[in-house]
Amino acid sequence: MRYFEDFEVGEVSECGPHVVTREEILAFAKQFDPQPFHVDDEAARQSIFGGIIASGWHTAAICHRLVVEGLLGKAASMGSPGVDELRWLKPVRPGDALSVRVELLEKQPSRSKADRGSFKFRFQVSNQKGEVVMTEIANALFARRPPA
Amino acid sequence: MRYFEDFEVGEVSECGPHVVTREEILAFAKQFDPQPFHVDDEAARQSIFGGIIASGWHTAAICHRLVVEGLLGKAASMGSPGVDELRWLKPVRPGDALSVRVELLEKQPSRSKADRGSFKFRFQVSNQKGEVVMTEIANALFARRPPA
Repeated sequence: MRYFEDFEVGEVSECGPHVVTREEILAFAKQFDPQPFHVDDEAARQSIFGGIIASGWHTAAICHRLVVEGLLGKAASMGSPGVDELRWLKPVRPGDALSVRVELLEKQPSRSKADRGSFKFRFQVSNQKGEVVMTEIANALFARRPPA
Repeated sequence: MRYFEDFEVGEVSECGPHVVTREEILAFAKQFDPQPFHVDDEAARQSIFGGIIASGWHTAAICHRLVVEGLLGKAASMGSPGVDELRWLKPVRPGDALSVRVELLEKQPSRSKADRGSFKFRFQVSNQKGEVVMTEIANALFARRPPA
C-alpha cells in the first residue's frame, strides 16, 4: 500500500490499455448521454463526427477505471474533491485502445488534518495511434502513513 | 429545436430529479470506479464517508443525462470541448434524488466557423435536502439556425 509519503512529484505512471467496444459505447450512451451522435449510426454519420463516438463522460470514466487499476487501487486513496481543465480533444471511436499517462504535478500535506495530504495529477488519455484524446488535472486526497 | 440564437445569457433551466439507487451505484462503480468506499459496504463504513457513496464520475454522468433530457435533447447540440472546475462537494448516497440547475453564463459566435457558436454553462447538482453535491462549468458547441 502506497501512502502520501511514498509519492514523488514528477513521477509518471502508465495505465491501460483498454479497448473500447461499440457495445460499451452504446450501452453507456443509452444510459447517460443519448445524443444522436452517440447512439444513432445514421445521425452520427451525418454529424460533424462522421460516425458513432463515445460520450466524453464515458472516456472520463474509462480513464478513471484505468487509473484505479494502475495506481489508486494500490494506494491509500481517500477520494477526490474535483477535476480542472477536463478537455475532450479528439473523438473516441469503436475499437480505439485507450491508455492513460499519469504525472504527479504537486503534493501538499493538509494544514487542518494530520492524517492526509492532497495531490494534483495530470492525466493524459491517448489512443492506439498515440493521439491525445482527453486531458484533465485531477485533485486527490491520500492518507498519510500511520505512525509505526 | 433550439439553436444558438434561441438561448439568452442568464437563462436558467431545472433538470431532473433522478433517484440514485444502491444498485446503480454499485453497477457503475464495479465497472468504472471499484474503490472500496464505492463497492464494499464494510470498507465504506470504516472510511471517512461512513457508508457506500456514488463515484463522482457517476454523479457527473447522471448530471449529464438530466441535462440531455431537460435541455440538450431539444437543442442543436454539437458536443463539448470540455469542462472546468468540476467539484464534488458532498457525498451522493443510495436513495438521493438529484436535480440540476443549469445557468447560461456566456455565449460566443465562432470566429472561424459560421455554422456554430459556443456556450458556457454553470451546472449545479443538488440533492433532495437542497444541498449542492456537485458543480461544474460546462462548455458546449451549438449549431446556428440554418438560413431560411
